[in-house]
Amino acid sequence: MSTYQSLCEVAAEVALLTSAESVLGWDQETYMPEKALGHRARQLSYLTGKAHELLTSSKTRKLLERAEAEKPEDERQAANVQGLRRIIDRATKLPRRFVEEEKQVTTRAKAVWVEARRQSDFAMFAPHLEKILGLARRKAELFGYKDEPYDALLDLYERDTTTREVAALFAEMRPQLAELARAAVAKSKQQRPGVLKGHYPCKQQQILNREIAESLGFDFGAGRIDTTAHPFCTTLGPADVRLTTRYDETRFLSSLFGVMHEAGHGLYEQGLPGHEFGLPGGSAASLGLHESQSRLWENHVGRSRLFWTKWLPRAQELFPHLRKVKLDEFMREILRSEFSFIRVEADEATYDLHILLRFGLERRLVRGELAVKDVPGLWKEEYHDLFGLTPPDDRRGCLQDIHWSMGGLGYFATYTLGNINAAQLFAAARRRKQVAAALERCDYAPLLQWLRKNVHAHGAALTPARIMQLATGRPADAKWHIAHLRERYLG
Amino acid sequence: MSTYQSLCEVAAEVALLTSAESVLGWDQETYMPEKALGHRARQLSYLTGKAHELLTSSKTRKLLERAEAEKPEDERQAANVQGLRRIIDRATKLPRRFVEEEKQVTTRAKAVWVEARRQSDFAMFAPHLEKILGLARRKAELFGYKDEPYDALLDLYERDTTTREVAALFAEMRPQLAELARAAVAKSKQQRPGVLKGHYPCKQQQILNREIAESLGFDFGAGRIDTTAHPFCTTLGPADVRLTTRYDETRFLSSLFGVMHEAGHGLYEQGLPGHEFGLPGGSAASLGLHESQSRLWENHVGRSRLFWTKWLPRAQELFPHLRKVKLDEFMREILRSEFSFIRVEADEATYDLHILLRFGLERRLVRGELAVKDVPGLWKEEYHDLFGLTPPDDRRGCLQDIHWSMGGLGYFATYTLGNINAAQLFAAARRRKQVAAALERCDYAPLLQWLRKNVHAHGAALTPARIMQLATGRPADAKWHIAHLRERYLG
Repeated sequence: MSTYQSLCEVAAEVALLTSAESVLGWDQETYMPEKALGHRARQLSYLTGKAHELLTSSKTRKLLERAEAEKPEDERQAANVQGLRRIIDRATKLPRRFVEEEKQVTTRAKAVWVEARRQSDFAMFAPHLEKILGLARRKAELFGYKDEPYDALLDLYERDTTTREVAALFAEMRPQLAELARAAVAKSKQQRPGVLKGHYPCKQQQILNREIAESLGFDFGAGRIDTTAHPFCTTLGPADVRLTTRYDETRFLSSLFGVMHEAGHGLYEQGLPGHEFGLPGGSAASLGLHESQSRLWENHVGRSRLFWTKWLPRAQELFPHLRKVKLDEFMREILRSEFSFIRVEADEATYDLHILLRFGLERRLVRGELAVKDVPGLWKEEYHDLFGLTPPDDRRGCLQDIHWSMGGLGYFATYTLGNINAAQLFAAARRRKQVAAALERCDYAPLLQWLRKNVHAHGAALTPARIMQLATGRPADAKWHIAHLRERYLG
Repeated sequence: MSTYQSLCEVAAEVALLTSAESVLGWDQETYMPEKALGHRARQLSYLTGKAHELLTSSKTRKLLERAEAEKPEDERQAANVQGLRRIIDRATKLPRRFVEEEKQVTTRAKAVWVEARRQSDFAMFAPHLEKILGLARRKAELFGYKDEPYDALLDLYERDTTTREVAALFAEMRPQLAELARAAVAKSKQQRPGVLKGHYPCKQQQILNREIAESLGFDFGAGRIDTTAHPFCTTLGPADVRLTTRYDETRFLSSLFGVMHEAGHGLYEQGLPGHEFGLPGGSAASLGLHESQSRLWENHVGRSRLFWTKWLPRAQELFPHLRKVKLDEFMREILRSEFSFIRVEADEATYDLHILLRFGLERRLVRGELAVKDVPGLWKEEYHDLFGLTPPDDRRGCLQDIHWSMGGLGYFATYTLGNINAAQLFAAARRRKQVAAALERCDYAPLLQWLRKNVHAHGAALTPARIMQLATGRPADAKWHIAHLRERYLG
């Protein structure tokens, strides 16, 4: 066996542990009984520690050094070795005790968050957030950073991107997005709402969601959909991608777009080279690219008129009271823009404002300029500045997202980066005649194939910037996203 | 920290790994998508290997030796050290490669078995059974045995019990059981069947099953019920017990008694001392005792007339077509005895015959007197000898049980040992006035408390024989079981 192969074996062994963790994490969110939490936290912390120990052992590090000294067989091998260097170096900066503690804290915090959100009780969640913030700051110090600690956290999700760059981008986008959102909301206000009112049984929603996810190409032989408090997508193995959603029987579009979003993540995961599972080449390039996939399928495909020429009739079969609704009326509802309190239910025209709010708040939290106890107040203020409304409670304010409870500080910016990438990738894909023609027929296979080849197949063997450049012919730029929003919401 | 405490920490660490395995195993049976199997087998095999490595390491063995040399603080500590000696010695006899291979083989075999059973295709399953039989024989050789290899397998499930003893017991019981079964079946034949015919929606069955499991004392805050091909109970942590069942919408009693059976196992698991999770004191004493708990709740409680004075009215609320059924008619249906092909659906009067058949067949398989390819034929012959009927296919014959696919050769005898223990324990419990009086009111709390104290609390700190002796005042004896069957079915 070559040194490189031996190194790959270690990475595969680490992936056995981390993917076992993922099974336990998925179970925690979906089916685990409540009293099981303490033991689950111990199991997860233990597995995390074991994976960390293996990844950072002197044996692994020596193997890596030897693999680096060898001439790689091809570019992919070189990229995998480089990627492992990055992963192993980063892991080595964290003591095992630290990663174990982080897992314990976040496993418990996730469970508390579910309850705090349900009861809209920030005080219940605050001590956990305090701990998580402390861990995030320590992590940033351990990793090191250029300008500010948030850089280190952001880099975990979006490599090679700095806080300063994101802040500048968001500052530039903010007036455009705010104006666009105001105009879109004003336009929607002129239209009479309510044609979608009615009862949408959960079971029927599940049928529709599944059919649509299948039509996009999601492989249910290697995945499934379950119900959770916060929708997510997680990968438990190279052929095991789990999506989740939640149901509201007064609105079917909420779970449907949720599923399309998560299925977008799932299609990316199912498109990664399975034989490189656990290696950089078998992993997503960044969250900004991951979100580009979810937002592309959810918004560019799912909220298009074309899509509903096929799927409205099917929805009408499943929900007979929709039969009286015409496609034009239906599309007005789908593209209705309003200032909503909940990010995951926001329309595209207002969505990014939710991200700007979170990014600014998180940055101040990490900088130590904002105390945890002041989060609810500032959230409301900032929300009011952006949307002209005040959330009536924390459930619809700072308690709505799971991210902080998972320790995901630094994550939110990737949603808007994802929107930017999505618009640019979709525009590039549609320049292919075959893709565009198939979309006219509501056939998504050529689009998926284009994404498989131009995004998924690279895994993290290329940087996200390089993938965007190769796939679209130019660096990531927000102009496609802004143009798309203008056309769809103000056109 | 004392040596004993250090040893307990190692055992707890092993339990973190094995309980993570249990989560992955549970997921495999309940929700895992089919293509995930290969990776799941690798994950499970890896975790098994890791647990084995830790349990058998020289460090652990030295710790054990030092703990043995110290004066124990109390009997419980002494029992835990002795029990760990037994577990560690046994594990040390198996090479790590062996346990990893066994896990790989059985993980895959379980999935194949589900499909082979569905298609009633023994040839599909045969090569897997061949491998499993080979592994079982090798395991027996590695463990060592007194008279025959089957001893070593039996001892895994029912410690201190030999094949010869079980064979003698079964030989003695066989004519009594056969005669009793014939008489019970003949008696039932004279009664008009069919008052329970009707449609029992799965959802309504689930409501009833859950209410009944709760009324027995099963804690759903620390457990749940899911759907699988073969019902089982598995423990994922000290407060995480998962039951499963399957539904047939033409019969509600099949899933109900299935759930009562599994809840019986679950009550035992929930009654084990959680702070000793991973130690002998926190583990079940034997499968014969485990089965005594499931059979006690299923049969002695669940199939009693008293039970249905409370639950028939509730069933009638959930299944309105039952309203016309009187308690007498209902009880005749519940106690209807017939020769059924499927063990898990067999009535008590015929149940043990299914076990006798399997025990004999398995013993011959392990001795090498029976080839895998000849199993279906011999099964049919033996079934005919016992029941006077021939199973029409292997789905209703040798493919019906999951046990072989899990590598559980040596397991079946414990069902009849469980029946024997159940009758004796139930008789002893009812000698307590408080228990008997509560049962009259359909209040199961005092019975559960008696079992908690006299069976569950011991864990495996005492041998099964000692537990039976202490709880009932005498050694295990089949006479209560036979008397119970005579009274219930021929009385």
